[in-house]
Amino acid sequence: MSGAQPHQDPSDVEHWIARDAARVWHPFTQMASFADNRPLIVADADGLELIDVEGNRYLDAISSLWVTTLGHRVPELDDAIVRQLEHGAHTTMLGNGNTIVVELSEALARVVPVDGPHFLYASDGASAVEQALKIAFQYWVNRGEPSHTTFLAFGGAYHGDTVGAMSLGDDSGFGAELFAPLRFPVLRAPGFDDPTCFDTAIAMLERHHNEIAAVVIEPSVQAAAGMQLADPDGLTLLGEACRARGALLLCDEIATGFGRTGTLFASEQHGLRPDLLCLGKGLTAGYLPMSVTVASDEIYRSFFGDDLGPRTLYHGHSYAGNALAAAVALRHLELIDAWDVLANVRERSDELADLLHDRIAPKSAVRDIRLRGLMGGVELAPPAAGLRWGRKVSAAAVERGVLLRPIGDTVILMPPLTIGSADLHRMVHALAAAIDETADASLDAER
Amino acid sequence: MSGAQPHQDPSDVEHWIARDAARVWHPFTQMASFADNRPLIVADADGLELIDVEGNRYLDAISSLWVTTLGHRVPELDDAIVRQLEHGAHTTMLGNGNTIVVELSEALARVVPVDGPHFLYASDGASAVEQALKIAFQYWVNRGEPSHTTFLAFGGAYHGDTVGAMSLGDDSGFGAELFAPLRFPVLRAPGFDDPTCFDTAIAMLERHHNEIAAVVIEPSVQAAAGMQLADPDGLTLLGEACRARGALLLCDEIATGFGRTGTLFASEQHGLRPDLLCLGKGLTAGYLPMSVTVASDEIYRSFFGDDLGPRTLYHGHSYAGNALAAAVALRHLELIDAWDVLANVRERSDELADLLHDRIAPKSAVRDIRLRGLMGGVELAPPAAGLRWGRKVSAAAVERGVLLRPIGDTVILMPPLTIGSADLHRMVHALAAAIDETADASLDAER
Repeated sequence: MSGAQPHQDPSDVEHWIARDAARVWHPFTQMASFADNRPLIVADADGLELIDVEGNRYLDAISSLWVTTLGHRVPELDDAIVRQLEHGAHTTMLGNGNTIVVELSEALARVVPVDGPHFLYASDGASAVEQALKIAFQYWVNRGEPSHTTFLAFGGAYHGDTVGAMSLGDDSGFGAELFAPLRFPVLRAPGFDDPTCFDTAIAMLERHHNEIAAVVIEPSVQAAAGMQLADPDGLTLLGEACRARGALLLCDEIATGFGRTGTLFASEQHGLRPDLLCLGKGLTAGYLPMSVTVASDEIYRSFFGDDLGPRTLYHGHSYAGNALAAAVALRHLELIDAWDVLANVRERSDELADLLHDRIAPKSAVRDIRLRGLMGGVELAPPAAGLRWGRKVSAAAVERGVLLRPIGDTVILMPPLTIGSADLHRMVHALAAAIDETADASLDAER
Repeated sequence: MSGAQPHQDPSDVEHWIARDAARVWHPFTQMASFADNRPLIVADADGLELIDVEGNRYLDAISSLWVTTLGHRVPELDDAIVRQLEHGAHTTMLGNGNTIVVELSEALARVVPVDGPHFLYASDGASAVEQALKIAFQYWVNRGEPSHTTFLAFGGAYHGDTVGAMSLGDDSGFGAELFAPLRFPVLRAPGFDDPTCFDTAIAMLERHHNEIAAVVIEPSVQAAAGMQLADPDGLTLLGEACRARGALLLCDEIATGFGRTGTLFASEQHGLRPDLLCLGKGLTAGYLPMSVTVASDEIYRSFFGDDLGPRTLYHGHSYAGNALAAAVALRHLELIDAWDVLANVRERSDELADLLHDRIAPKSAVRDIRLRGLMGGVELAPPAAGLRWGRKVSAAAVERGVLLRPIGDTVILMPPLTIGSADLHRMVHALAAAIDETADASLDAER
């Protein structure tokens, strides 16, 4: 672990892990192995670092699961919450409004790549995807074209874990196959790792456009597939094909939004103008749960009809448009501008690409490196299956004071967008040492 | 509107409504009618009141859609958030922990009606339901009994709007029928308004117990069905039948939890010990989005297996276990005790029952009154369909400074749990006048 502090009370962390394991069911975690995998029990966060119950500091190189953009304990963001508390934490959006939500929506409207945008809020990212798929489905019903009941989605796709979101997602990797009896079927193009995926998707769209409610895609990067990068030209062609066929384009930018890929939204880099856009994670700078489904004016107006009538979207979450989350999201947008965060993402991305090229790519234990903006994946090349190299490399990095978490054997690099050069080096240095340690241990075990 | 303040600038509210309508898509709202329905645009909330952009005050008699328990701007809750901000707003629960989430889980464990409880967090209530249904489904797979692929749910049920939650919910009322091609099928018992519903449900359970993953119920009150009250004996019998058959009981207490019905959880009143319990809304006192799926120790342990193996629950949300939400939820539990909130709910419920009996029930425009704790529904008796009496009565109450929102022709009464006697009278007084005004206007229109 980094920092000079020795363990002040070795029993303390064990005690906290035991208390945690006794009551908390952690997401995406085999709880029988939770304690053995040496979890961090975080007591404090500060800037780019997490501080555990013993005072050890860790670089948060996964942005607390891809959400933290400007770091932790940002005075300006803390202040936005404190000021909103003076006006109330939450009031309902069902049929009524709140000024801070109006202000946030106006600020978002100025920057989202959607024509005439309207904003339907939720809290979980998966809920934003559910809203989008229901809006797409009902759009066609409202237009009197109810044959559009399926979706075209991609191999390797991940859109969340609720049943609808899981239906759009591929069944590989995250156990969605198990839930097949609950999921609705979709048309499935190959994943981004297949260079023909966009040609195939466009051909499927040509053949099935009368059945498709929307084409669903993570623009630019399939994050949960281990940072699979889209062919930019293919993505642009897909957008054009959707437009030509009148097919709705649903972009899930929950992971890529808010500067992560070097532009405010990844869609911008590929000339995409989604009809429906899902945002979450970085929306609140990593502070509070808030997600939003953005609909184009054309989509939105197709829901106009008689009050209480069947064209209405009967859908909503109690905490939609939470005032505290809206306040921090609004301030976050201002800070992204004021601090020129996008410039830092692009500069640090170039620097990280060089570092990975020089320090990581040459290792025989590394199969592939994928990076767009500050979304990176280092795919390891374990000599056999079942060695859990992704897990072991990440654990070895944590031992060196850098919190990493893998997806399979791909180690994810996802630092806060305000990371500086020194911390980039710290991250890559720990990763390099962790890979060497893991590969050497495997070699020793083989001998 | 209540209070002596005249409209200081009549154009101001129109301007805010126009700005809101231009960008915000409100849940469960026909946006073509939004402005005409005179929405409140809330600028401040204070105690039991919402304050609009003109300074007019409204009693929040729907607890900002059933979430606010102790009122708005509670100094102790505000302070809990401010103090947590000093430790960080959010860190990931995926494979790692946070001390405030451990403390909240321990506090919840002392009070939830679940044996050996474990806590899987999310943010939207619907997400907690999705988690519960996936846990129930996978529980049987993990036990090697994969025939349990369906659910037994009730008529009139509402469990949220994501595809899985909507599948468990009934298709009447909220447009779920439209989405039939996306929903998975379930076994459906009658609703609570049918006195045979529990007998029928138990018979269905006897017949289909080998196919059923869980029996899903809103214990005590089907809230979104217009506050339909369960027969207490029937509910107890259902719980016993589940136990006898080894069927999982999944209780959705998102609306009923945290004191709303006079006990901390409604399950307690009916001797229910759910295997899976969903909580949300009041969990954070109405401050921040947080929901949780509570699983019994037996359920939880069925997911133990090899690390990264197939028995794991591969499910999670980025903001699960948000630290700010956990801090306010923890303080809320302490305040419920310290302020003896449950005693107030019971006393005010008795008082409200008397008031409704004396002032509302005798009206010919009222068909039925249903009340449990501080969950109430006044079902109107419009002389013809399509008169929108629920909407009109609520609007007339808003004109009198009391925010109400109906479900169909049932006006919902759902005040904060700390309401006093004076505000109960204020609420019923406004409701009585609003019903009279609406009924008289209908009579005039008939003449």
